[in-house]
Amino acid sequence: MGLLEKIRCPADVRALGPEELPDLAAEIREFLVDAVSKTGGHIGPNLGVVELTIALHRVFESPRDRLLFDTGHQAYVHKLLTGRQEGFRLLRQRGGLSGYPSRAESEHDIIENSHASTALSYADGLAKANALQGTDGKVVALVGDGALTGGMAWEALNNIAAGEKRPVVIVVNDNGRSYSPTIGGFASHLAQLRLDPGYENAMGFVKRVMPRAPVAGSAVYEALHALKKGLKDAFTPQAMFEDLGLKYVGPIDGHDVHLLEEALRSARDFGAPVIVHCVTKKGCGYRPAESNAEDCFHGPGAFDPATGKSLAGASTSWTEVFGTEMVSLGTERSDVVAITAAMLHPTGLARFADAYPDRVFDVGIAEQHAATSAAGLAVGGLHPVVAMYATFLNRAFDQVLMDVALHRLPVTFVLDRAGVTGNDGPSHNGMWDLSILQVVPGLRIAAPRDAGRLRQLLREAVAVDDGPTVVRFPKGSVGADVEAVDRMGEMDVLLRKPGLSRVAGGPEDVLIVAVGAMAGPCVEAASLIAAHGLGVTVVDPRWAKPLDTELVGAARRYRLVATVEDNGRVGGVGDAVARMLRDAEITTPVVTLGLPQTFLDHAKREQILGDAGLTPQGIAREITRLVHGPLTATDDGQPASLHS
Amino acid sequence: MGLLEKIRCPADVRALGPEELPDLAAEIREFLVDAVSKTGGHIGPNLGVVELTIALHRVFESPRDRLLFDTGHQAYVHKLLTGRQEGFRLLRQRGGLSGYPSRAESEHDIIENSHASTALSYADGLAKANALQGTDGKVVALVGDGALTGGMAWEALNNIAAGEKRPVVIVVNDNGRSYSPTIGGFASHLAQLRLDPGYENAMGFVKRVMPRAPVAGSAVYEALHALKKGLKDAFTPQAMFEDLGLKYVGPIDGHDVHLLEEALRSARDFGAPVIVHCVTKKGCGYRPAESNAEDCFHGPGAFDPATGKSLAGASTSWTEVFGTEMVSLGTERSDVVAITAAMLHPTGLARFADAYPDRVFDVGIAEQHAATSAAGLAVGGLHPVVAMYATFLNRAFDQVLMDVALHRLPVTFVLDRAGVTGNDGPSHNGMWDLSILQVVPGLRIAAPRDAGRLRQLLREAVAVDDGPTVVRFPKGSVGADVEAVDRMGEMDVLLRKPGLSRVAGGPEDVLIVAVGAMAGPCVEAASLIAAHGLGVTVVDPRWAKPLDTELVGAARRYRLVATVEDNGRVGGVGDAVARMLRDAEITTPVVTLGLPQTFLDHAKREQILGDAGLTPQGIAREITRLVHGPLTATDDGQPASLHS
Repeated sequence: MGLLEKIRCPADVRALGPEELPDLAAEIREFLVDAVSKTGGHIGPNLGVVELTIALHRVFESPRDRLLFDTGHQAYVHKLLTGRQEGFRLLRQRGGLSGYPSRAESEHDIIENSHASTALSYADGLAKANALQGTDGKVVALVGDGALTGGMAWEALNNIAAGEKRPVVIVVNDNGRSYSPTIGGFASHLAQLRLDPGYENAMGFVKRVMPRAPVAGSAVYEALHALKKGLKDAFTPQAMFEDLGLKYVGPIDGHDVHLLEEALRSARDFGAPVIVHCVTKKGCGYRPAESNAEDCFHGPGAFDPATGKSLAGASTSWTEVFGTEMVSLGTERSDVVAITAAMLHPTGLARFADAYPDRVFDVGIAEQHAATSAAGLAVGGLHPVVAMYATFLNRAFDQVLMDVALHRLPVTFVLDRAGVTGNDGPSHNGMWDLSILQVVPGLRIAAPRDAGRLRQLLREAVAVDDGPTVVRFPKGSVGADVEAVDRMGEMDVLLRKPGLSRVAGGPEDVLIVAVGAMAGPCVEAASLIAAHGLGVTVVDPRWAKPLDTELVGAARRYRLVATVEDNGRVGGVGDAVARMLRDAEITTPVVTLGLPQTFLDHAKREQILGDAGLTPQGIAREITRLVHGPLTATDDGQPASLHS
Repeated sequence: MGLLEKIRCPADVRALGPEELPDLAAEIREFLVDAVSKTGGHIGPNLGVVELTIALHRVFESPRDRLLFDTGHQAYVHKLLTGRQEGFRLLRQRGGLSGYPSRAESEHDIIENSHASTALSYADGLAKANALQGTDGKVVALVGDGALTGGMAWEALNNIAAGEKRPVVIVVNDNGRSYSPTIGGFASHLAQLRLDPGYENAMGFVKRVMPRAPVAGSAVYEALHALKKGLKDAFTPQAMFEDLGLKYVGPIDGHDVHLLEEALRSARDFGAPVIVHCVTKKGCGYRPAESNAEDCFHGPGAFDPATGKSLAGASTSWTEVFGTEMVSLGTERSDVVAITAAMLHPTGLARFADAYPDRVFDVGIAEQHAATSAAGLAVGGLHPVVAMYATFLNRAFDQVLMDVALHRLPVTFVLDRAGVTGNDGPSHNGMWDLSILQVVPGLRIAAPRDAGRLRQLLREAVAVDDGPTVVRFPKGSVGADVEAVDRMGEMDVLLRKPGLSRVAGGPEDVLIVAVGAMAGPCVEAASLIAAHGLGVTVVDPRWAKPLDTELVGAARRYRLVATVEDNGRVGGVGDAVARMLRDAEITTPVVTLGLPQTFLDHAKREQILGDAGLTPQGIAREITRLVHGPLTATDDGQPASLHS
């Protein structure tokens, strides 16, 4: 590990001789496989950008030059080259390195968000700021071919192209896939560029002529630069980028660090927006990743570095339950079709795709189109199921509201990774959907508490024919079913314990409204509460929106209503319950437990839930405090303690 | 008016002889100018698509073939040709025709939403549904060149191109502008196609050879079709559409109905996705519109048909106050820059652009990029002000949350048309922002009540340097300032009337929290309430998020807190006030007045606010009812009336 150990900052990378770079790349790969095999993480994408990241740090001078990593999970190599090797021991663990760029970690990190296709927009803004202020640094965005299928990327390219005097270097990391192979007209166009028969010859020629990169501004450089441009024009078909007004350089072998340096230097000195098209191989240099057809080891948990075999135990995930049920639904109903935004496997739709290949549509990293093309499918008489991670639905809020709900179209959105995901940090937590979707007229939201309810509620959702539905569930293993002991309207009663000191005919102490996966912890909490002699009932509304109006009548029979959800406290189900009671002029106090409305640092899911008090103990503690403690009186002297 | 009167359905259009079409077009223009001059409406866009809409209805058979109007404000001609001439008398009035396609009005209307760039996604979905089910009808989307700068359009094109066996006819209505001239690399590409020197000759040639359209499938047709394709290849530069895998036909003179028919027939019968590029002139045939450089009479109010002069009175709008203050801010602070999503004039930024042309960026109809490029500008050390209509911010929710707020970047979003806009129907009301933005950590929201506060709060917002801010205000004239009588923390006290029957030291009756433009009606309502002898105070929080914690202490001194906002009741400021009091364990009841959480049909703003009870009378009535009437008791026998 001689070379990598010596790299503490980008200047150390620049100080290496060109002949040392392949060795550095090999050391980085070895380091990554070893480190990530212990912690889990985005190993596949990072193995694909080893040479590219080395070349970026040799050609550009971060942080004066701004390196923007789109999506950000491919920044491990960047972290290694900017003095963060030790941090990998605790990668994605509480207090350890983030799995994404993090401004708190390093001045070399600019953007933190993991949602795709944003870097080009940041780059456009930075280039504009530089131009207005006469700032010197370069702006470089590294973006995957998958992310270019996202609409934001198009909006940004259109604007970057308009800024002829505002240089931006757009490095396309083209591995032909994001999670799954990239699909669509644009992907075909990239493939056409890649497969052009002139490519290999042209690159071979440049390699022979140019064993090491000439100095920019030199006569040799200028000649080669012109020659290269000529080669490109001769050998590659005209790229749509140039129609748009963006100079195109490529395709470049993304694992030849010398060629990469040369191309990036040309781009850096070009003085106008330019696209550098680099062809890389996801998982490059690690056989188990290279040979994984599903996702090239996109982001596995801990694994055996020798074999690539997963070290996780075998437990059934929410995703698998959904995926299996979709196949059954597909068999029963020919009108059920599925949509994924470039995440066929992660969303569990792969089995449906195997069974019904014509009835699944991968639209690219394009959540807006996922929603509105689903609306179109529904207008056409089908029932689309759009499966995505909860946090990514935020990209399609307007489309859900206007294109689907306003039109009362039967589209079912299945939101995986709702609630706390944890180790991927603030941008991956699905803690927004239960709030922002509350405002959508006519939308119904189901929050299944277990595998049985997921199957049941998915079926109920797909049976709705007069408007959109949402089914949301968390990441991870689904655990045992939590059976109902009774029914109350649409709601399941999960537990009912009478209080020891209840006055005959008087109210019981606490009604707990448990949302989705919080049902289990709530039932445990209720047992703890009942052990104090308090009367407690736990209901699962099953449909979090609209709430069953039975809840109003029920609330009157309790001294306190407590809502528990794995969603931000602001605007969620708790607020909806409180509003429902206010509107009915019911004065039973409501306490709304949920996640604090902040961006939550990466940590284990259990740690974050624990901090938020969303454990059985935490829930029980807060509820018993409220039942026993006095609430603040109003100024008219009425004491308002629940036991007054 | 002989021809138009006879048209009751598309079959009547198809039955006309080709020689009658220019007369029909002239009659339609005359009808539109006459009708819209009385009601106001989107006259400019509709004058531009007269021939195009006639041709569409002659070539395609709606409703079997699906005509999708992107954005939808250019569907007046379509309405005229589908039996809705009488409805124009009450265009955009309560009970009258919608200004957009409306499924309730006609089976010929498919999509209703007015947000741009959605039609191609619907088209992709419909084409997929047709393919799966073996349905016969064609799918046709009419989309403006401006809307093609929106990311959704790119996502859709990428998917449509991938469906080689799923025909979609994409008609590009290229008038070089949406509101303002279209900007960006893509606009330049379209312009290059338009200005190609071969265009006029080629079209002249086709015109000479083909005086009327030949029958599809005939030998003449096939020959001409091949010829036309050859002409295109010879005369126009290769279009990026073809790189993407979409067949390109054009450019076509969008005011030559015969050429349009011929091109649309070719496209209809092509059997694969095809783009028909039509060049039109916004406002065509009506001199005041053609010569209006600002927006070609995009959507004026009532006007004199002879001169085009506006018939509206001269009163200062919120937009103008904002626009003027921006110029002052720009003078004082060189770091303040402005961003618009293709709406320089409607958002009031034109004066800023005149004063500081280098510091305003029109990004196209691209709200996502508006937000994230603003984030980039802020990373670069500037303070961007992003001005857009409130309803369109929904397009950028994820970008506001992740790209701006997560990064704590100082970007100010100015939301015009917040609250009820009225006559543009459900998709234009800005009744969502105060709810969905509540969940964004660290975001501050100002809701100015008058011109003075708009100037003040805009300055306060732009002074914030550690996170995003929002300033939101409604459509229309701003009215007189509502002066404060006192201050309570960050809040303004607008009125304070003691109750007649108040017990010394006891609580007063009602605290009204008036949000933004609801301040005026609330002060009036308070006077009505005080006339009943009740004690009432009106506060304007100024900053709707975060709420001043002084509100907690204040609430304890009242029997009832009433919140009033021109936003949906779900998740808005009212819910935030109620949550704040719950969290502080204050039991003062809260009533939250606002808009019903439904899609509101088009009507005058005043009518909608009246229906929602958001008039002085409505507010006073609801509050006095609650103060006087008993609230429902809890079951423990405690009466909970406010006067108990």
